[in-house]
Amino acid sequence: MDVPAAPTRTQRRKVLRVSLSDGAEPRADILAVEEPLEIRVDDTPLSVTMRTPGDDLDLAAGFLFTEGLLPSLAEVREIRMCDSNVAAVTLQQNGQVLRAPNRSFLMTSACGVCGKDSIDAIRTRSVFDVAADEVRVRAPVLASLPGRLRAAQKVFASTGGLHAAGLFTASGDLLVLREDVGRHNAVDKVAGWALRSGRVPLNGCVLLVSGRASFELAQKALMLGIPVLAAVSAPSSLAVALADEGGMTLAGFVRGQTMNIYTGEHRIVR
Amino acid sequence: MDVPAAPTRTQRRKVLRVSLSDGAEPRADILAVEEPLEIRVDDTPLSVTMRTPGDDLDLAAGFLFTEGLLPSLAEVREIRMCDSNVAAVTLQQNGQVLRAPNRSFLMTSACGVCGKDSIDAIRTRSVFDVAADEVRVRAPVLASLPGRLRAAQKVFASTGGLHAAGLFTASGDLLVLREDVGRHNAVDKVAGWALRSGRVPLNGCVLLVSGRASFELAQKALMLGIPVLAAVSAPSSLAVALADEGGMTLAGFVRGQTMNIYTGEHRIVR
Repeated sequence: MDVPAAPTRTQRRKVLRVSLSDGAEPRADILAVEEPLEIRVDDTPLSVTMRTPGDDLDLAAGFLFTEGLLPSLAEVREIRMCDSNVAAVTLQQNGQVLRAPNRSFLMTSACGVCGKDSIDAIRTRSVFDVAADEVRVRAPVLASLPGRLRAAQKVFASTGGLHAAGLFTASGDLLVLREDVGRHNAVDKVAGWALRSGRVPLNGCVLLVSGRASFELAQKALMLGIPVLAAVSAPSSLAVALADEGGMTLAGFVRGQTMNIYTGEHRIVR
Repeated sequence: MDVPAAPTRTQRRKVLRVSLSDGAEPRADILAVEEPLEIRVDDTPLSVTMRTPGDDLDLAAGFLFTEGLLPSLAEVREIRMCDSNVAAVTLQQNGQVLRAPNRSFLMTSACGVCGKDSIDAIRTRSVFDVAADEVRVRAPVLASLPGRLRAAQKVFASTGGLHAAGLFTASGDLLVLREDVGRHNAVDKVAGWALRSGRVPLNGCVLLVSGRASFELAQKALMLGIPVLAAVSAPSSLAVALADEGGMTLAGFVRGQTMNIYTGEHRIVR
């Protein structure tokens, strides 16, 4: 098997720094690298996502699973990079993807989302019962996670351009951290890591995301069997509705000494 | 023509506010609404985007144009909402979309992005020559735009969950502001407004986005003929590369008294 070169995640570039008070001067700036990744399944292009290179096999595996396109990695014979920007997935004999990916999805026939409940129309069903997860997380532990995430990502934080997703135990130990220009990619990279190390469902775990919690991220967490999703910033209405329906704890604005618990507050021990 | 009910952009919800020092108390929180919008062209579902309701006709028009799916609004006979979450586009006779949308795109046949330059493989060509735009913007004006954007969006800023895109003149007057849970949607809503009011190409204009500048946003700005793209946060490597190639000025970290000029610094007057 070829060993690919280490991916370049940051890029230096000369910029002009302009200060209204101090004038302008050239300066070196560090950019987060963004490149397209095409995911192919059995030689058929399935999706292209704009991502930061690195952990691309995890990204491909995580994407296929959290989008509900594959029921498990048991369907996969091999995933390899056939180019720095192409991940080629080969399925086992008789394997096939379940449907078109959500982000490009064509609704079924006549009606689309007309008159249907939005969540039912777009959600992917998880095989895991997150509501039954009896884990408890102490509020001070939850409050400490953003600091732990930032400490772990301090290298790439230099660009100011990366979203981070960190998977923690209920006692606050960091299991894995992934960063990406796309927040969904960061979560899919965590998902791929968990899938490929045989840890799914992620019972008892907390997923922390550095930005906002959208429907898409809540869905990915549910697909992975994660009982607690925490975000440094705001959740959307549909993220809250989905978390509520799925029995997942959703915390937002986890900053400093405070946080908002939107759903599943029974898991938070004060 | 039916007049649809005013869309709901925010939603109140009771949350549990937890403070490590002061304990927990129920509190009302305001969420940004996120709902799917399906865009159909001549009864064929083309794309679904998660967006904040409102300005949906603009969003549909802007999406089709900035993604390079339609060369102009002259191709469109009508856009209407056939449901609160479905925008139906009817083309003129013989009209057709040019290709599959980028975000769901299937690369052509054999090679995909293998061995090709990433930008060439994924970019959409603008019909406008942004490089020729001779507009100049004073640095103090550029520095003032984030404050003007925040002042104009103060209602929805309450949720903490919305991205904003503002279109300004070179002298700093706000032409239009749009907010959305998705940053690309906010820009597409601005695009649709500009298209439907006959203002494209947007010569001499500045587009300010509240977050990061990705490849996708830089591409949309180029498609609209916008000479200056400014972001409150960091640009990605590919956004900078595309802006450079297209002759667009790209400013990042536009905050307080300072900013970084990544490309096209000749347009910034100090």
